[in-house]
Amino acid sequence: MAQIVRLDDLDDPRLRDYTDLRDVQLRLRLESERGLFLAEGEKVVRRAVESGHRPRSFLMSPRWLEGLADVLDSTDAPCFVLDDASIERLTGFHVHRGSLAALERPDLPSPRQVLDAARRVVVVEDLADHTNVGSLSTRGVSSIIRVAVFEDFVDHANVGAAFRAAAALGIDAVLLSPRCADPLYRRAIKTSMGAVFQIPYARFADWPEGIEVIRDSGFFVAGMALSDDSISLSTLVDANHEKLALVFGTEGSGLWRRTLDAVDATVKIPMHGGIDSLNVASSAAIAFYATQG
Amino acid sequence: MAQIVRLDDLDDPRLRDYTDLRDVQLRLRLESERGLFLAEGEKVVRRAVESGHRPRSFLMSPRWLEGLADVLDSTDAPCFVLDDASIERLTGFHVHRGSLAALERPDLPSPRQVLDAARRVVVVEDLADHTNVGSLSTRGVSSIIRVAVFEDFVDHANVGAAFRAAAALGIDAVLLSPRCADPLYRRAIKTSMGAVFQIPYARFADWPEGIEVIRDSGFFVAGMALSDDSISLSTLVDANHEKLALVFGTEGSGLWRRTLDAVDATVKIPMHGGIDSLNVASSAAIAFYATQG
Repeated sequence: MAQIVRLDDLDDPRLRDYTDLRDVQLRLRLESERGLFLAEGEKVVRRAVESGHRPRSFLMSPRWLEGLADVLDSTDAPCFVLDDASIERLTGFHVHRGSLAALERPDLPSPRQVLDAARRVVVVEDLADHTNVGSLSTRGVSSIIRVAVFEDFVDHANVGAAFRAAAALGIDAVLLSPRCADPLYRRAIKTSMGAVFQIPYARFADWPEGIEVIRDSGFFVAGMALSDDSISLSTLVDANHEKLALVFGTEGSGLWRRTLDAVDATVKIPMHGGIDSLNVASSAAIAFYATQG
Repeated sequence: MAQIVRLDDLDDPRLRDYTDLRDVQLRLRLESERGLFLAEGEKVVRRAVESGHRPRSFLMSPRWLEGLADVLDSTDAPCFVLDDASIERLTGFHVHRGSLAALERPDLPSPRQVLDAARRVVVVEDLADHTNVGSLSTRGVSSIIRVAVFEDFVDHANVGAAFRAAAALGIDAVLLSPRCADPLYRRAIKTSMGAVFQIPYARFADWPEGIEVIRDSGFFVAGMALSDDSISLSTLVDANHEKLALVFGTEGSGLWRRTLDAVDATVKIPMHGGIDSLNVASSAAIAFYATQG
């Protein structure tokens, strides 16, 4: 059970994981050096712990203790209690639903491990007895294995929204290009509604060389791009690939030239009304929905 | 042809349409009182003028004059020229791609007019001779007439993103509940990539009474809601309604209870992985894509 520790000295060294939350650059450096990430808000804190991430500590104002009592009961990490105004002074901003947790940053699997795991899911599904249905329901009803690849999503909100859509629409795993923003940065976690805890992901060290790794694992690799020679999304759906990787580029510039050359096909969502494109979260949501099989 | 007016006095009364752009409340009041709206950035300024909105004036730094020369040639409105630093001081923020236009706010049609126009499109399409194909292509290839209804989208970015998805995916018109944010507010225009200029829209004075007006115009009215008794989106698609109105609620609270009672059916996008919902722009994009027919 978490020890409840009421503090009033904001310089207490036990609070140092929670300082300067508005300074993105500082936090990104500090969190990766110390091997932690932050969860914000009752729902996200709960999801982080329940998905198996190990809390180092919690920080909240008194009124959140009750709602998170079961979560606190499940761990030995201390829970620091401050009033809302002190939390705001310490962190530098108004904390959403007054609760925070600092958790151990997990070691990421390799892209190959993630791809293999996504592959194994079919085997499990095919052999499943009914006692397993509960744990399998999170994998969706489709026998198509799908992974999403995000190339250089540098905006934390975009990363979070894309993870949220991926999880909600049954994508099996996410792969990131080397320059993609950190899905465990506070803002990405929040925008994802905790989906970053639910969906396995990995980061490529080399890109677009990683496309070969995906293909070697048996996936058809489709890059989303609005070029004239792109096939339409409905054509891709009709092709009914058993293992499908969908690659998305950043808003504005789109996929790298070398990525476009390396994929098996480029795919577009046909646009009306002279609109150039959808935003990347909307495109991803449509592609995830349409390829559910 | 626009008269080019180089200014250096930021207190010049001719610049008063461009002050304090960061003060949302002030701007909303001021713009509706003076009957204007602002377009920001070369692309959006161009789209605003080309879609037939009457410019009152332009404001830009010298280097944008050339790119917008043809737009300036098409109007008698004056173009005020200031350096970038002065524009930033005047407006209170860094102007995206250094150009702005103040335009006459158009009179909105009534919801009934918008619905009737969406209806007329079918007739026009059916009778179309080929010389008209160009202007009709923006209406999409579908014979299904679709309108989108946004209930209480109070966030300007959400309004813009939803308009962008509606235009990109061939929705014929947008209807707004009384409390929806202004699609012609600068941030909404920007997020929409100018789609607010391309797609006809109207605002209901009474809601959810407006649902009757939609139904009277021959539309099947579907409310997007993740309730247990909602039909799935694919069931709605299979029903193949000739005229379809899709109603979206705000993120978080969803559609009003009275709205849920008034629609012909509630429709859900089935969710995986314990994720509660998609964000509203993604849900709308999926619904617009899937119902293209």
